Amino acid sequence: MSILSADEVQAKLDASPFIAFSGLRVVSADAEKGEITMRAPFRPEFERAAGSGQWHGGPIAAVIDTVGDFALGMLLGGGIPTVNFRVDYLRPAIRTDLVATARVRRNGRSFGIADVDVFDEQGRLLAIGRATYVTAPAG
Amino acid sequence: MSILSADEVQAKLDASPFIAFSGLRVVSADAEKGEITMRAPFRPEFERAAGSGQWHGGPIAAVIDTVGDFALGMLLGGGIPTVNFRVDYLRPAIRTDLVATARVRRNGRSFGIADVDVFDEQGRLLAIGRATYVTAPAG
Amino acid sequence: MSILSADEVQAKLDASPFIAFSGLRVVSADAEKGEITMRAPFRPEFERAAGSGQWHGGPIAAVIDTVGDFALGMLLGGGIPTVNFRVDYLRPAIRTDLVATARVRRNGRSFGIADVDVFDEQGRLLAIGRATYVTAPAG
Amino acid sequence: MSILSADEVQAKLDASPFIAFSGLRVVSADAEKGEITMRAPFRPEFERAAGSGQWHGGPIAAVIDTVGDFALGMLLGGGIPTVNFRVDYLRPAIRTDLVATARVRRNGRSFGIADVDVFDEQGRLLAIGRATYVTAPAG
Repeated sequence: MSILSADEVQAKLDASPFIAFSGLRVVSADAEKGEITMRAPFRPEFERAAGSGQWHGGPIAAVIDTVGDFALGMLLGGGIPTVNFRVDYLRPAIRTDLVATARVRRNGRSFGIADVDVFDEQGRLLAIGRATYVTAPAG
Repeated sequence: MSILSADEVQAKLDASPFIAFSGLRVVSADAEKGEITMRAPFRPEFERAAGSGQWHGGPIAAVIDTVGDFALGMLLGGGIPTVNFRVDYLRPAIRTDLVATARVRRNGRSFGIADVDVFDEQGRLLAIGRATYVTAPAG
Repeated sequence: MSILSADEVQAKLDASPFIAFSGLRVVSADAEKGEITMRAPFRPEFERAAGSGQWHGGPIAAVIDTVGDFALGMLLGGGIPTVNFRVDYLRPAIRTDLVATARVRRNGRSFGIADVDVFDEQGRLLAIGRATYVTAPAG
Repeated sequence: MSILSADEVQAKLDASPFIAFSGLRVVSADAEKGEITMRAPFRPEFERAAGSGQWHGGPIAAVIDTVGDFALGMLLGGGIPTVNFRVDYLRPAIRTDLVATARVRRNGRSFGIADVDVFDEQGRLLAIGRATYVTAPAG
């Protein structure tokens, strides 16, 4: 297990076809605080209603899953399996990139927990996530 | 509020850029039982690790959100806002379409709940979701 | 790991001060189906508003946690640690015992999942739960 | 809707048989920050295994539900119905009171969300909760 730098996390993201498609970019990564921030640009394929400029909730959930994953993953050397997660939607995400910050709440031997807050470009809270991941080494 | 036929649900799905992109097709819709089944084909953009043929969990969560939404939505005349949902991953989804069945657990005046089971083409359970939606008319 | 009979589950329940206090009784246990049903009598200490005869949601959540636990626990030889759970409240529980049925959705090497439906004495659905437990042997 | 003082919240808690039984005491209440802290003493009836001094998870979940409820409830003039909540257990709660802090994440017209962190007397995080409540006036 080795701690990943922001560049190393970005390389892992880019290596996954889905994450690469979602366009996630690491903005900052602080392994000591267990906190990572990423930015996801709006894509036309993620639009809810045609012409609305609004993100469908599905891609927002996918962003939450991924950013939470790498809050723990940067401490563990790579992406890890998701056990389950919850997402709550607070306000529509319209004509904006998403800025998502994940924070490790637990990093145990078997599983870990990350909380994820998703903001718009103005810093308004759009959605929140809480996710459990497998931290035990595969085998 | 009017009950939607399977074709009418399909038309609503196709009208959303994200849902159209995800390729969801209504397999069956039973308004009386509050149950709807859809199928989502694998897309290369949804792959977790390059060459793995495995669905990333994010698009699976998006499928759960959408299929659950229309279990209630077919009873209410269209898609409705998601309040929150939980997804649990049971087994990797590899080289398979997803077959997702959502069932209404509650259809109240303010909010409703749907459970969603996601299977592979062989009928193995891959993931399960539980979601709360706003059933109150907008306004 | 040995499968527990209904009587053996009941003995485990009675050995826990909190579960004994909550008065849970095993109604039926079907290890092959991974399904267990228990009944919890109303207690004055569980009342929400004085004189209402309504269960507070907290004890309902506790019942869900426990019944779900023993759906897996009867297969594994005893109660197991809860990782997390979600509870949704559908209708007030007033002047009624609770009848809770839990069903195993997954019994994996590390984690298991149980769904729990809580009914009143007339068979109306009051609350639903979904819980993840540690199935790996302690060590 | 009127904002409740810490004493007024305490009076509401004491008026509920279950909450009174659980012994919750308001430690601090900050309506402007949407944050409330309560303390729950250990009771023998809440013990998991006889002689362990460990809280069963059920009463911890009940504490989370209640403290989260009054983070919003102090802003709205009283306790409000819970829609659903999630609780994650991080570490056993042994021979300790619980200190629970709830923070409002959303206070909307229909729904509100509160996050709850539960600590032991040494300030170690034991469990976390996230709950959705009905904020719309009853009618």
